[in-house]
Amino acid sequence: MPSGVGLVETRRTVVFDGDRPLRLASGGEVPKVEVAYETYGELNADRSNAVFICHALSGDANAAGHHEDGDPDRPGWWDNIIGPGRPFDTDHFFVICANVLGGCKGTTGPSSIDPATGKPYGLRFPLIQVRDLVTVHRALLAELGIERLLAAVGGSLGGMQAMQWAIDHPGELDGALVIAASARLSAQNIAFSAVAREAIMRDPDFNGGDYYETGKRPDRGLGLARMIGHITYLSEESMREKFGRRIQDAELPRYGFDVDFQVESYLHYQGQSFVERFDANTYLYLGRVMDYFNPFEDPIHVQHQIEAGDTSFLVLSFDSDWRFSTSHAREIAAELRLAGAPVTFREIASPHGHDSFLFPIPDYHETVTGFMGRLARQRGIAGS
Amino acid sequence: MPSGVGLVETRRTVVFDGDRPLRLASGGEVPKVEVAYETYGELNADRSNAVFICHALSGDANAAGHHEDGDPDRPGWWDNIIGPGRPFDTDHFFVICANVLGGCKGTTGPSSIDPATGKPYGLRFPLIQVRDLVTVHRALLAELGIERLLAAVGGSLGGMQAMQWAIDHPGELDGALVIAASARLSAQNIAFSAVAREAIMRDPDFNGGDYYETGKRPDRGLGLARMIGHITYLSEESMREKFGRRIQDAELPRYGFDVDFQVESYLHYQGQSFVERFDANTYLYLGRVMDYFNPFEDPIHVQHQIEAGDTSFLVLSFDSDWRFSTSHAREIAAELRLAGAPVTFREIASPHGHDSFLFPIPDYHETVTGFMGRLARQRGIAGS
Repeated sequence: MPSGVGLVETRRTVVFDGDRPLRLASGGEVPKVEVAYETYGELNADRSNAVFICHALSGDANAAGHHEDGDPDRPGWWDNIIGPGRPFDTDHFFVICANVLGGCKGTTGPSSIDPATGKPYGLRFPLIQVRDLVTVHRALLAELGIERLLAAVGGSLGGMQAMQWAIDHPGELDGALVIAASARLSAQNIAFSAVAREAIMRDPDFNGGDYYETGKRPDRGLGLARMIGHITYLSEESMREKFGRRIQDAELPRYGFDVDFQVESYLHYQGQSFVERFDANTYLYLGRVMDYFNPFEDPIHVQHQIEAGDTSFLVLSFDSDWRFSTSHAREIAAELRLAGAPVTFREIASPHGHDSFLFPIPDYHETVTGFMGRLARQRGIAGS
Repeated sequence: MPSGVGLVETRRTVVFDGDRPLRLASGGEVPKVEVAYETYGELNADRSNAVFICHALSGDANAAGHHEDGDPDRPGWWDNIIGPGRPFDTDHFFVICANVLGGCKGTTGPSSIDPATGKPYGLRFPLIQVRDLVTVHRALLAELGIERLLAAVGGSLGGMQAMQWAIDHPGELDGALVIAASARLSAQNIAFSAVAREAIMRDPDFNGGDYYETGKRPDRGLGLARMIGHITYLSEESMREKFGRRIQDAELPRYGFDVDFQVESYLHYQGQSFVERFDANTYLYLGRVMDYFNPFEDPIHVQHQIEAGDTSFLVLSFDSDWRFSTSHAREIAAELRLAGAPVTFREIASPHGHDSFLFPIPDYHETVTGFMGRLARQRGIAGS
């Protein structure tokens, strides 16, 4: 499927600086924050058709389309859902996606230069929370002159941002689309996160997070973390169908400790390609953002916030997702309803596990299209 | 619960040596094989009451009781099922447990001295298969003057050995107890195994498997492998109950990259205590033994073998085990029945995940007691 939005480019803007540093939820500060972002479609005259895409752990600002120097056959990570005639219809909506705070694709994060030292932050970058990611998104919107969104949307960590946004800033979102997300990681989720973090931090080339100027990077550890992650992104069923017990490039097993089974080869490839495009410290920071995420910790506060706003929620899960299973989504829906929010909840049938939110599953895309159409009509703008 | 068998000791015996090397299923050879083993109870006059315990990946010969220098409160790994009045009743049965070939607890493995070089084998130890583990168990039995077992029994990798034994050597087992095992690892199982292997092999201190004389061991990698393993040994439910999102030794999160949640602390402890007692190369070899295990690859052969014997099978699974779920056990039972074997299959309710086979769950222990009683009556000896 060719990209619907075609050629795009990433822009950058400084949203916090000088006497206006970013103040974090923890009380800490980041003196200067630059944001990398992309937009697709046109902002309408009354600035009412903006849709903000929040990306997941390994995402970036390039959600749709391709860059001039990029492969047109490998467009942005959510290209199949963004574009003319697609659920986030760029004939009607102005779609924005920004690399998150703490990221490594153009937005300020641990690999950025700390103005205080002139060197990369490394682990001296402050711990951040989902609400800080939202603060930076809002600063970007302020720059773009947008006060209210038609929708904030995201899968996984992206869904957490949409959820937190609706809770922290009532009256800013018509809709929040919370897809394959969780309101609190389970012990098993935290366990996987811990092992991935350990894999990175135990790599001698990690060097306490200060590897940017050593000529070595913790690629072994980061690759391992990504391999672990991928096991949790796929379903057991999809792994069985994709790989089974088949041997890579051979009929018979080679019997040894090198890669032999196809599933091993797949994980190796995923690990290797990831280290070429991602920063280990960002992986640590965003992993911890998810571990500590707990937006319903104070249900009375959430109820007051929800009552002060008018956001409609679409909460989606996928039946084969065992990272954030449907029980996570049911908890989100139940807690939002308890707080008084209008919530549509649906479990979508899909074999693709947690990764399902990235796939163009008809039932899923139709559900998103329907929800976006209702938001558009409610706001008095044309839907798709 | 105090140990039923009390003080025990590990004995050692050389079962292959000189002009009688161990010939492996792969065609390779191990010139000398020593076995570490323990026995509990007494062999009866007609040598018909022997029960062989096959251990899992991280087990050893000390299945029951405690050593003179050991803690009486921390007896062998399967003490709760072995002893007077217990399912493997030492008032009636002669119970044997041996460290497996490739192990690191007294039986020849990659940490043993290669007679050809005078140095530890490391990765020069040949690749082994489940059937080789059985070959070594049988050589030990020959030394003990036992030609036929009342039962071979094991959980996980142990169950694989019992299964392979019954298939390869018809007429040697009255019963085979195959508990929490698999007849072929799934793609997801192999994926977890691959990541654990990578964790070890990517540790710079692994040194290609030659770490015995360097003064450094791949403890970081082995600990990580064990942490990954433990996630798959516990159920999501038991993790939630044991740890939830509780913080270790504190009320409030510390917000950082160190261990903070209880589940992280648990995994760290498991990883750390494991490296103190286990060899990384053994982990690699036994992991690969499981990856390649495929006893029903040639179903016609299996049928001939089963028809030539008279082994009764007890196949057990645990409903919360997601490493080797009930679907694995159902496949084993179905394939054995297809080959003509008498099979009793039961799924036991338990919250403990794959580790369930180590717990004294009443329904589980009663099922084993009943099966062992039938075998004993069939053989004309007293059961428990």
